[in-house]
Amino acid sequence: MLPLNPALAATFRPPVMEARRWLEGLSLPAGLPLINLSQAAPVEPPPEPLRRAMAQAALEQPDAHLYGPVLGRAELREAVAGEWSRAYHATIQPGQVAITQGCNQAFCAAILTLAAAGDEVILPTPWYFNHKMWLDMQGIRAVPLHCGPDMIPEASAAARLISDRSRAIVLVSPNNPSGAEYPAETLRAFCELARSRGLALILDETYRDFDAREGAPHDLFSDPDWGDTLIHLYSFSKAYRLTGHRIGALIASATRMIEVEKVLDTLAICASQIGQIGAAWGMAHLRDWLAGERAEILARRTAMAEGMAQLSGWRIKGCGAYFAWAEHPYDLSSPELAQRLLYKVGVLLLPGTMFMPEGDPDAARHVRIAFANADREGIAALIGRLESFRP
Amino acid sequence: MLPLNPALAATFRPPVMEARRWLEGLSLPAGLPLINLSQAAPVEPPPEPLRRAMAQAALEQPDAHLYGPVLGRAELREAVAGEWSRAYHATIQPGQVAITQGCNQAFCAAILTLAAAGDEVILPTPWYFNHKMWLDMQGIRAVPLHCGPDMIPEASAAARLISDRSRAIVLVSPNNPSGAEYPAETLRAFCELARSRGLALILDETYRDFDAREGAPHDLFSDPDWGDTLIHLYSFSKAYRLTGHRIGALIASATRMIEVEKVLDTLAICASQIGQIGAAWGMAHLRDWLAGERAEILARRTAMAEGMAQLSGWRIKGCGAYFAWAEHPYDLSSPELAQRLLYKVGVLLLPGTMFMPEGDPDAARHVRIAFANADREGIAALIGRLESFRP
Repeated sequence: MLPLNPALAATFRPPVMEARRWLEGLSLPAGLPLINLSQAAPVEPPPEPLRRAMAQAALEQPDAHLYGPVLGRAELREAVAGEWSRAYHATIQPGQVAITQGCNQAFCAAILTLAAAGDEVILPTPWYFNHKMWLDMQGIRAVPLHCGPDMIPEASAAARLISDRSRAIVLVSPNNPSGAEYPAETLRAFCELARSRGLALILDETYRDFDAREGAPHDLFSDPDWGDTLIHLYSFSKAYRLTGHRIGALIASATRMIEVEKVLDTLAICASQIGQIGAAWGMAHLRDWLAGERAEILARRTAMAEGMAQLSGWRIKGCGAYFAWAEHPYDLSSPELAQRLLYKVGVLLLPGTMFMPEGDPDAARHVRIAFANADREGIAALIGRLESFRP
Repeated sequence: MLPLNPALAATFRPPVMEARRWLEGLSLPAGLPLINLSQAAPVEPPPEPLRRAMAQAALEQPDAHLYGPVLGRAELREAVAGEWSRAYHATIQPGQVAITQGCNQAFCAAILTLAAAGDEVILPTPWYFNHKMWLDMQGIRAVPLHCGPDMIPEASAAARLISDRSRAIVLVSPNNPSGAEYPAETLRAFCELARSRGLALILDETYRDFDAREGAPHDLFSDPDWGDTLIHLYSFSKAYRLTGHRIGALIASATRMIEVEKVLDTLAICASQIGQIGAAWGMAHLRDWLAGERAEILARRTAMAEGMAQLSGWRIKGCGAYFAWAEHPYDLSSPELAQRLLYKVGVLLLPGTMFMPEGDPDAARHVRIAFANADREGIAALIGRLESFRP
């Protein structure tokens, strides 16, 4: 038999694929077509002009098919540096931007440069499961930091978890799975804590384009020494509906880029050129369209929060970007509830156990609802089905 | 300052990017335009019908832009399973095929499932540098296995390197960097060694489409229990000129796929959909075209071997697929020679030190020539320049 890395054996299976397996051979109740709220992903392709730009590149641009620089195409790195400098009122250089094969890979690369087996990384709970999976398979201990009832983690609580093996604190804002938008002061406090204790702060802002707040969500980049503490992550998947192209970004100091380049060369060689061309085109031409997308998501969020508020027993703990994190009223563990919701009322969402350490009592009582894929009619249908549900 | 993973700090910088840096601001001697033989990569885009197929998918196929299954699109997994079953006279199931973001990632995934920090993996030298880099950054010891003068490793020599921390033996055939095509008996002997000692045999056949031999290069897949020992890797980059799309494959037992899926979900979520559509289209429609590509590469290989044989002092140690591995006649270390070749006669190739352990005396005496990018005229020019070169 093949040898098996014990760290891999101890890593759980991908939750989204697990949920997809529930759908295999499933027959739903009559009149209740599936409402799939399991994954944070656009279900429509990018707008036609962007598809046309990518098709034209595929046809006419030879370099769309050939190796590009490890850290990304110059025009995309420049576009990100320019746009981020404006958005965060800061100066970010193209040399501080790396383009990755999706934001998951940006996280993997960031961690690889920081920590080795036996080290520790602080992760607020509920966490994004792929973050936990990467730490597990690298033999790095994920130290859970419980969020308060408002789903906002506290730096003072994190301070008590720091040991001499700690290497980083990971924050996701707007959050997956809770939707919470972390206040600027929270991010500032975490950054100061990380700096004072010699840790990295990895800040994943995959959902930044759908933040309900106007203006910069934090001022961390305005510190000229931000690169000594901060590593920022981003994804082009949601804003431009490019999930199938796998384009993400990692922003870090130019010194750290030397290490990031080693990782990306080895794992990736480069990110998809067509995907990068599409992302750069989107940044240049879809600003207004993206503003409309954001408005639509914010409207869905309002519909979601209002709808859930009418449901007796349910409690919304967080709601924003693509997600709601909800406490359910049933005397059932969340995996059991998720399966019954699927079989009885055709609603697929993910149980809290997929986002929390084993044995955490909160895990059984919560579910993640990735509502962004449902339009307002779909959200109304969801509320109706949750109302009619009898366990 | 950000923490630094000591394993990353100990990993060398990407050799190809290093060589590209040599080109920055370089002024070449008059009349000697650059002959770049540093990277194994097509310099032309895919043929027009394949580009058109990809452009059409970008424009008309919504799923070309959206998340796909972690282990790859069904049609591509089926195509690979079918084609490999025919080529190796074996039965390979689609469920034993995973599609990765390039073949480097297939290697990273295979290693992650097998070995953890502190383990050992046996790697023939000269090695493919990204293999060494991944092992280094994972804290896994690469145990060098010296090839004989014919550049073929011996299983009996490998047997003496096995310890209780050994997890895998890695072979690349046709080889990068030496071009050597490993005989079927060699591969069989390694597979039996690996099986008898409970190790994995990772066999990277990225260059299989350019093997000079007709028929199956080995019979390992004909053993019904191959999945207990063998993990096979492949790249679509060279055959269909899709380097910029990053599409590779990993073939392993269905049981191992459970672990591979965890890794790919975390690192990648999925490989580029457009790239996968292009790879499947290429497999279905470009068989004859690929046969022509192979014939051209084989003709270049003959030109290369004959040309080098005329050069006094140089000795070709291996020549095949995209590469020649050559011993040079100068009283210079290979990095010094590589730089002088660039500055004096405009030839860029990689020094042996990039492919061997530090301090190995063979490293200084050899260079890798990635000749596949040069046509026969270019190879003639290369030979002329090497002839005229005075260190």
